[in-house]
Amino acid sequence: MIKIGLAGYGNLGIGAAKAVAAAPDMELAAIFSRRAPDDIKNLSNVPTYSIKAAKSFINDIDVMLLCGGSKTDLPEQAPYFASMFNTVDSYDTHSKIPEYIKTVDDAAKKTTAVISAGWDPGLFSIMRSLFKSTIPDSETYTFYGKGYSQGHSDAIRRIEGVSFAAQYTIPVESALNAVKNGEKPKLTPREKMRRECFVVLKPGFDEAKIRNIVITMPDYYADYDTTVNFIDEAEFNKNHLKMFHGGMVLTNGNTGENNHKMEFSLSLDSNPDFTGSIMVMYARAAYKMAKEGLFGAKTVFDIPVCYLSHEERDLLISDLL
Amino acid sequence: MIKIGLAGYGNLGIGAAKAVAAAPDMELAAIFSRRAPDDIKNLSNVPTYSIKAAKSFINDIDVMLLCGGSKTDLPEQAPYFASMFNTVDSYDTHSKIPEYIKTVDDAAKKTTAVISAGWDPGLFSIMRSLFKSTIPDSETYTFYGKGYSQGHSDAIRRIEGVSFAAQYTIPVESALNAVKNGEKPKLTPREKMRRECFVVLKPGFDEAKIRNIVITMPDYYADYDTTVNFIDEAEFNKNHLKMFHGGMVLTNGNTGENNHKMEFSLSLDSNPDFTGSIMVMYARAAYKMAKEGLFGAKTVFDIPVCYLSHEERDLLISDLL
Repeated sequence: MIKIGLAGYGNLGIGAAKAVAAAPDMELAAIFSRRAPDDIKNLSNVPTYSIKAAKSFINDIDVMLLCGGSKTDLPEQAPYFASMFNTVDSYDTHSKIPEYIKTVDDAAKKTTAVISAGWDPGLFSIMRSLFKSTIPDSETYTFYGKGYSQGHSDAIRRIEGVSFAAQYTIPVESALNAVKNGEKPKLTPREKMRRECFVVLKPGFDEAKIRNIVITMPDYYADYDTTVNFIDEAEFNKNHLKMFHGGMVLTNGNTGENNHKMEFSLSLDSNPDFTGSIMVMYARAAYKMAKEGLFGAKTVFDIPVCYLSHEERDLLISDLL
Repeated sequence: MIKIGLAGYGNLGIGAAKAVAAAPDMELAAIFSRRAPDDIKNLSNVPTYSIKAAKSFINDIDVMLLCGGSKTDLPEQAPYFASMFNTVDSYDTHSKIPEYIKTVDDAAKKTTAVISAGWDPGLFSIMRSLFKSTIPDSETYTFYGKGYSQGHSDAIRRIEGVSFAAQYTIPVESALNAVKNGEKPKLTPREKMRRECFVVLKPGFDEAKIRNIVITMPDYYADYDTTVNFIDEAEFNKNHLKMFHGGMVLTNGNTGENNHKMEFSLSLDSNPDFTGSIMVMYARAAYKMAKEGLFGAKTVFDIPVCYLSHEERDLLISDLL
């Protein structure tokens, strides 16, 4: 059994714990959190420790899943944990990945550290690269939603004065339809999707100021049409706790006069459950690659699908090829 | 530039030649055919030789694309060519792949031989394995069509007495809708799709006998509801030369009470163009893997997507992750 540790036990950590329980070849060994261990109710009766205690578990954990946020947690935690453990994270600040992977790779001298293994970046990245390599004369489009985005909601929650926040990403329908019809329009991020936010403020904070911080936030909001709605906690709890999401990667390509469409789409009741499931799948790859001495920071581009399955290669070939 | 050879220059070979021309890092070095070289008109002004002459081109070709049929050509040609060249084929008799890969692997001692690299087996196989590994508590369905199947048409054309044949695979709509709605029905191949064939006979052959050979053909037709229509050559040329195809892999999965849908779908004007494009993409992988000494028979499960792209890994990470 592959022994899994969780660093962080918010929504993503809970999703990852469920995925470990569903994996036939894994067991959850320990949970680490910044919160006081006694405050954490976990679903699996697994021992919970302060995140500072993790370093004494080097021999007890095969892969550590880093379930913190991309904005502040992971840039600090990923190199730290990768220096000791095989790790998987779902770092999702696309524009900063080149810088991020270098710091993780420098730390992962004798470990395997899979970065950005969620659904985007992650499965969607695989599709973008695969589709483009299949048909070079092509245009590829990524659409999100409608759905709740963990990373973007997290980014708002970290603003001083915010109690709760939910962000929904919504495709611009006219753009989506054009691509589905086989057209190859040039679309900016703003023309493809818009962002709608619902925010609960702590007493004494100013709506206009917080709105401005949100809509000008680089990487997350500045490049999109964003609306920010301020609501009270009761309304938030009633309408904004469902973390559904989805999206699609669409490629329209040509071989001479012939048109070809490729599409990958996801419709997810729970974004953190699904992202946790992907991280757990890549934990299996990290474990296998580390056994083979394939150390350093890895991406979804570097890992063949046979490393992701608990089945033997012969069985994959006979059953799924 | 990666130097590509084509063994076989039917529809698939022509599609592969177009894909080589579209690849920025490849050139077509030679075409080999069983037909007399002078009979072959090729689009690319590339020298054409008898397939028997191929062995004298070992130093001139980096990867040989095997563009013959699965029924009789590839089982004979793949081990022969893999003993001399890096190869890629799109062998598509699913039930015989375990036996096939062994004979190719035995031959590929100092070469890299990628087998079954089309869209199914191939891209669809990647999705089936990836989806199942992501959500273990799931059911995965493959639907084909409506579209023309090369392999199945080829199998009919090889029956004595058949001049021309076209086979269309058609999804059973009620089954497809149930899966799209998130249901997890148990479906036999027969319940998922049906097969419709249009056949032109040579003079003096018996329709009833040929129909019986088709509908009882193991692997290809015996497990499906198949209709065989006999038509004349004029009607065939008017209505049955378009080799469009498509299909989808659908997975309905659960993490506890939450439902998740994953879908991969293709809509293709030309099946051989698209299959040829996939083979060319895997030729790049075969070339890179051979350079690294990763010899033997490989499947799409064994090859990370970074081997499929002509772009450097750093650029994939910054642009597509």
